[in-house]
Amino acid sequence: MKAEIIIIGDEIVIGQVSDTNSAWISRQLTLSGIETNRIVSIRDHAGDIHAALADAGKRCDLVLMTGGLGPTKDDITKKCLCDFFGTTLVFHQATFDFISERFKNRGIPLNRLNRDQALVPRSCTVIPNKNGTAPGMWFEKDSVIYISMPGVPHEMETMMTGEILPRLIATGRTGAIFHKTVLTQGIPESVLAEKIETWENALPSHIRLAYLPSPMAVRLRLSASGSDLEALKAEIDRQIALLLPLVGDAVYGYDDETLALAIGRVLAQRKATLSVAESCTGGNIAHLITLTPGCSAWFSGSVTAYSNQLKTALLRVNPETLRNHGAVSRETALEMARGAATLMKTTYALATTGIAGPQGGSAEKPVGTIWIAATGPAKFFCEKFVFGNDREKNITRASQSALQLLRKLIVQE
Amino acid sequence: MKAEIIIIGDEIVIGQVSDTNSAWISRQLTLSGIETNRIVSIRDHAGDIHAALADAGKRCDLVLMTGGLGPTKDDITKKCLCDFFGTTLVFHQATFDFISERFKNRGIPLNRLNRDQALVPRSCTVIPNKNGTAPGMWFEKDSVIYISMPGVPHEMETMMTGEILPRLIATGRTGAIFHKTVLTQGIPESVLAEKIETWENALPSHIRLAYLPSPMAVRLRLSASGSDLEALKAEIDRQIALLLPLVGDAVYGYDDETLALAIGRVLAQRKATLSVAESCTGGNIAHLITLTPGCSAWFSGSVTAYSNQLKTALLRVNPETLRNHGAVSRETALEMARGAATLMKTTYALATTGIAGPQGGSAEKPVGTIWIAATGPAKFFCEKFVFGNDREKNITRASQSALQLLRKLIVQE
Repeated sequence: MKAEIIIIGDEIVIGQVSDTNSAWISRQLTLSGIETNRIVSIRDHAGDIHAALADAGKRCDLVLMTGGLGPTKDDITKKCLCDFFGTTLVFHQATFDFISERFKNRGIPLNRLNRDQALVPRSCTVIPNKNGTAPGMWFEKDSVIYISMPGVPHEMETMMTGEILPRLIATGRTGAIFHKTVLTQGIPESVLAEKIETWENALPSHIRLAYLPSPMAVRLRLSASGSDLEALKAEIDRQIALLLPLVGDAVYGYDDETLALAIGRVLAQRKATLSVAESCTGGNIAHLITLTPGCSAWFSGSVTAYSNQLKTALLRVNPETLRNHGAVSRETALEMARGAATLMKTTYALATTGIAGPQGGSAEKPVGTIWIAATGPAKFFCEKFVFGNDREKNITRASQSALQLLRKLIVQE
Repeated sequence: MKAEIIIIGDEIVIGQVSDTNSAWISRQLTLSGIETNRIVSIRDHAGDIHAALADAGKRCDLVLMTGGLGPTKDDITKKCLCDFFGTTLVFHQATFDFISERFKNRGIPLNRLNRDQALVPRSCTVIPNKNGTAPGMWFEKDSVIYISMPGVPHEMETMMTGEILPRLIATGRTGAIFHKTVLTQGIPESVLAEKIETWENALPSHIRLAYLPSPMAVRLRLSASGSDLEALKAEIDRQIALLLPLVGDAVYGYDDETLALAIGRVLAQRKATLSVAESCTGGNIAHLITLTPGCSAWFSGSVTAYSNQLKTALLRVNPETLRNHGAVSRETALEMARGAATLMKTTYALATTGIAGPQGGSAEKPVGTIWIAATGPAKFFCEKFVFGNDREKNITRASQSALQLLRKLIVQE
C-alpha cells in the first residue's frame, strides 16, 4: 500500500506553525507496513485542496489528510470533500450527541458553530474523535482510500492509533510488521552507535534499526517485517537479549515507558516515597513525575528553590555551603536532596542545581553545568553534567538525567 | 510573487527526520513579501523530482528546493536538474577552489566525491555556500525562478539570508505582506468565533483571519497583503483596535509572547516577586515560568504540595479547611496561595488544587475540576474551572488558566 499525506492549513504553509503531523503519520504508516511517497502542505483554499486530492489519488492507494475541520469560517475542508466526492453534508446524530455531552460536561452552551460540526458528507464513514469535536471521515473512490482527520496533533494521533490504523490493517492490504523500541538515557547517540556496531551489522536483513534521538532519550527502534507476526516478535526479543549487555544500565524501558513510570512502579511496590528539590530544572522534574497517573501513591511533592534564600530557609542548605562552594556544587546538590527528604519525610529524594542559561555562566562553571543528587535510605549518587547553551534543552536534559540517576540508585538499593 | 517549496529526501518522507527547513524558508519569504502557496516533500527519486519541478513551475513564479545535494550515491538532485533544464554538468573552478581551501584548513585530503561537488549544471548561476561544500543553484525558465539549496539547515539558512533573499528582492517582483497574531486564553474557539463574527465578516478582502487553537491558547492570526508595508501595519493595528473590546481581557499578548513573559515584564518593572503553590499542576506552572530567561529577578520559587500533609506542614493550610471543604476547594486554593506568599515572602502568589485525572473524581467534583487562586498585595482572585478527562491536557489548561488569572490580577492592581 502506497500513501500520500496532505496537510491543510495556511499556518503551516506560511511557516507560522511547524508541521509535525506528517512525520508522525508517516512513521505510524511505516510501522504498519505502509510506504509514504509524498507529503504536501497546502493552504485553506478550495482550488488547492481539490487539486491536491485529485493529484494524490492518481499516484497512490491511500490519501491521509489533516486540518481545516474546525468550526470556524476559515476551515473549508469538509465543503471541499463534498465537492470532490460529489456528495452533500448531512446531520450525524452520534457525532452531535458526543459533542453535546462534551459541552454539557464542561458547562458550556452549544452554539450554531458547534452544531455544524455534526454535519458530515453523506458518502463517508464517520471516524469518532475521542479528544475533540471534529470527527474524522473515511472515503473510498476508484479503490483509493481517502481519510480526513483533524489537525490538532493529539486528536489526530488518538484517532490514527485507535481507529484508522486498525481499520487499514483490517483491509488486508498491509503486511506484517512488528516494532519494539528500546529506551536509553545517558549515552550520546554516536557513542551508543559505536558500542552496538557489531550487533547492528549482524542484524538479519528483515530487521531494521532506527536511532531516534531527542533531548529526552535515545530510542532504538527495531522493526521486523515478514508474514508471521508471532515469529517476528520472538526474533526481536532474541535480538534485544543480545543488545542489552552492550548498553548496560542506560536502558530504562521499552516503547511508551517513561522514566517516571519506571521509577513509580518500583517505589509503589516498596511502599517508598519520593520528594524533589529543584533549582535549574524549575519544576520540570515534578511536572514529568506528575504526568504519571496515580503518582500520589509514591510522590509527596517538590520545592522549586530558585533563590538561595529558599534553599537555606526551606531546604536547610547550610549558608556556609553556599558561600564556600556556591549554589552550583556537589555539596549544595546533596544538601538540597537531604533537605527535601527531611522536609517532606520521604524515603528517596532528588535535587538539581545548575546554570540553565543563556546567561549566568563563568569560566569555571559554564552555562549547562548541572549538579544532580539522588539520595535513598542506604546510598546516594551525586554527579556533575555539562550540557549546552540552550535553556529549554538544558532543562529537559537535566530533568531526564536526574530521573535516570534516581532509577539507577533505586534498582541498586 | 508566489512561491512553492520542494523538500527532497527519503528521511523526511518516511518521517525519520522532521522537516524544519520549509517552515523557516516560508517565514523568511513572508517577511520579504513573497507568498508561499505549497510545500511538497518528496523522496530521492528522479521521477518524483522531475514531476514536482514541472508541477510547481505551472503554478508559481518561484520554486525553492532543498536537499539531495550531498556527495553520496543517494543524492540525485543535480542530475535531475540537468535533465529538467536540458543542460549538462560542467566543472566550476570557484567552487572547487572554495572546497579545496575548506579541506586544507581542516587537514582532510580531498577525494573524488568531494571533487564532484564542484560540478554544476551549465545553465545555472552558482550561489556560494559559505558553510558547506554543496553550492546553491539559480535557474530561470519561462520567467519562473528555480533555486536549489543544500538540506543542512544552517547551510541553507546562511545562503537564503546572505544571497538568495537579497537577489529575490532585487528582481523587483516581491510584494508586501504583514502578519500579526493576537494571543487569547480562556475563551473556547467556538465562543470566540461567535463574539467576533461581525468584526470578522467586515474585514477587508486583503486581510485574512486564521484561528490557531491549542490547549495553551487560541491565537488569532491577521494577514494583510498589498504593496505598502507601512500601510498594511497601520491597517492591521486599526483592525486589532476594533477587535480588542470584543474579546476583553482574554488577550494576553501578540506574536511570540508567552503568559510567563507578559507577567514577568510587569513584575520586574514593579520590583515585585512571585511564588507558586501547585497541587494538580504538579510543577508545570513553575516549569512554564522558569523557561523564561532571567525569571530569577521576579520568581522566588514554588512548592508542589501533592500530599495533604505537605499542604498543612509547608503551606500552613488549616487542617480544618481540608476537613470541612476538601483539598479541591476555594478555601484550600486561597490558603495555599497565601501560604506560599508567606513562606517564600513574595508580593504575588498563585495556587492550584484539583483533580487532573484520569481517576479520583466524584459526582460533586468530577475529574477536571480545578480551583485556582491568585493573590496580590491589594486583591485576590479565586476561580473554579472544569476541564475534561485527559490528565495531560488538564494540567496544561489549568497551568495556562492560572497564569492568565494572575496576569489579570496584576494588570488590575
